Amino acid sequence: MSQSFDIAVVGATGLVGEALLMALDEREFPVGKLFALAAGDVAGQVAAFRERNLRVQAVDGFDFAAVALVFILEPLAPAQLARIEAAGCALVDLSGALPAERAPCVVAEVNPQQVGTARWLRSPLPAVVALASVLATLRQVLRLKRVTVTACLAVSGRGREGIEELARQTAQLLNARPLEPQLFDRQIAFNLLARSSAEQADGHARDERRLAGELGEVLGEPMLPVAATCVQAPVFFGDSLAVSLLCEEPVDLPVVLHCLDDAPELERVEQGDYPTAVGDALGQDLVYVGRVRPGLLDPCELNLWIASDNVRKGSALNAVRLGELLLKPPL
Amino acid sequence: MSQSFDIAVVGATGLVGEALLMALDEREFPVGKLFALAAGDVAGQVAAFRERNLRVQAVDGFDFAAVALVFILEPLAPAQLARIEAAGCALVDLSGALPAERAPCVVAEVNPQQVGTARWLRSPLPAVVALASVLATLRQVLRLKRVTVTACLAVSGRGREGIEELARQTAQLLNARPLEPQLFDRQIAFNLLARSSAEQADGHARDERRLAGELGEVLGEPMLPVAATCVQAPVFFGDSLAVSLLCEEPVDLPVVLHCLDDAPELERVEQGDYPTAVGDALGQDLVYVGRVRPGLLDPCELNLWIASDNVRKGSALNAVRLGELLLKPPL
Repeated sequence: MSQSFDIAVVGATGLVGEALLMALDEREFPVGKLFALAAGDVAGQVAAFRERNLRVQAVDGFDFAAVALVFILEPLAPAQLARIEAAGCALVDLSGALPAERAPCVVAEVNPQQVGTARWLRSPLPAVVALASVLATLRQVLRLKRVTVTACLAVSGRGREGIEELARQTAQLLNARPLEPQLFDRQIAFNLLARSSAEQADGHARDERRLAGELGEVLGEPMLPVAATCVQAPVFFGDSLAVSLLCEEPVDLPVVLHCLDDAPELERVEQGDYPTAVGDALGQDLVYVGRVRPGLLDPCELNLWIASDNVRKGSALNAVRLGELLLKPPL
Repeated sequence: MSQSFDIAVVGATGLVGEALLMALDEREFPVGKLFALAAGDVAGQVAAFRERNLRVQAVDGFDFAAVALVFILEPLAPAQLARIEAAGCALVDLSGALPAERAPCVVAEVNPQQVGTARWLRSPLPAVVALASVLATLRQVLRLKRVTVTACLAVSGRGREGIEELARQTAQLLNARPLEPQLFDRQIAFNLLARSSAEQADGHARDERRLAGELGEVLGEPMLPVAATCVQAPVFFGDSLAVSLLCEEPVDLPVVLHCLDDAPELERVEQGDYPTAVGDALGQDLVYVGRVRPGLLDPCELNLWIASDNVRKGSALNAVRLGELLLKPPL
């Protein structure tokens, strides 16, 4: 692409915003002018891009006709979305607030063909980016019948506030000071919370419904049963997923391992070892897979462990790659 | 029981040993004389029982003919076990080292009938005590076809050393000092380790195989497929289990909730709320259950979350209750 594009990033000063600006630079995305936007009071806020400081502008007054592509990292009101649409911008949504019918959900290495003529795309939950990458690879050698996943999510999924709260609570406990939960509804330090988002009337949490729905959409298997529990873990960065798959046929382990080794987006950690969020995934563009093992009694069962950087790999990198797909000149 | 029994506890000074001595006292177990034993150098070691300090004696020189019942909290050599057998003692093993063929595995509230004429019993992994209590209850109203569990285990499962290491690593990280893993093979603070015990040649960790085997044995369903991942979590006390069940028929949620509410050993946390290891289970004799919800697509699927104190409920309390079953006078 020799052409360059003017771009707006809504929510540029958050954790994902920072990582997104870094990924745009690293991947030499053909950015002409970059506008860093945020909701609310932006006075004095600054975002760094290509070693320059950009003044953050308010979303409210921004004229979207000035840009070709908008990244949405925080939920926007319908009126704002209407302004972006009226301006004819391409859009990548990471806020999770855009309804499914407004834009397809895409993981760049899994279902890029879904982009088609779409001008707006949704980037899924970071855990879905990791899980879909692994399952799409495995689908080359096995047929999935059921997916059960316990997704232990990092507090950075709740932005800087999540990180600050885990650090603050941990220090309070180690120093025997009174614990004061603020962002999370109870003690997250040295504890696991049985959900990472609000629960809906049917008992499923919002993230769990989103994980199952987005995974089915990205894999093109909306009727695949997905049992998901999204746990909030006392981990700063990196999602860890314990996955159990039921397949239509007995699993051939050497074939599965070979298939995982061949996938350029995955890093399989050898049997006997295992990857972790902190030790392996942090800051990486790869999804880490390990502990690959068939069932103890059921040869059609396959279990594995996934670790992936939720901010970089699961959010910023996929968003930039979706932007590349949207701006690719037609053949 | 008006009779009293002399008792030996091997491993009396560990975390579980302390909790066991406390539970013996609280439940007014008919202890005559209590011998606190430990392997290795016991010079100067003391265990507290009924507000008295007991000198710890070496296992090696101990004459087991002096006691009626032995609790084994740390692995013993076959020669030691032979001495206990020769002395005609009843035995409760919590070490996990006693082979399955030597003694049935029992959870007091689930399969007490398995005690029969056995003189030796195995108390299972703490996570199995919790999981079997819940599944045995649910089996009153549904037929299990498959169990998938991610068991996030507390570091106290590794004894005092586990607790000291998590605290030390956390302090090192918060103070920006170099991290020095010792007991665990890598950073456990602010991280999740994909297994809690050594991996075997087939890729399953020892604890995972033990969990699946003991669960099947306690439930009397050795052929029930159990997919288990045992994760080492940065939590001091309390195991947290994310469980997904497949049942033979569609799940009737109100019936399931009612059944859980009726179980005296369980505490169901109301829908919309959820239990945690630290906030609910710690120091309690109940197993906490919450987030009970059928599948999103599959009505035969049932998901739930369990929190239980691994040291007290999962180890000490079950061991004492097994001791009670062993010493109960014949009808």
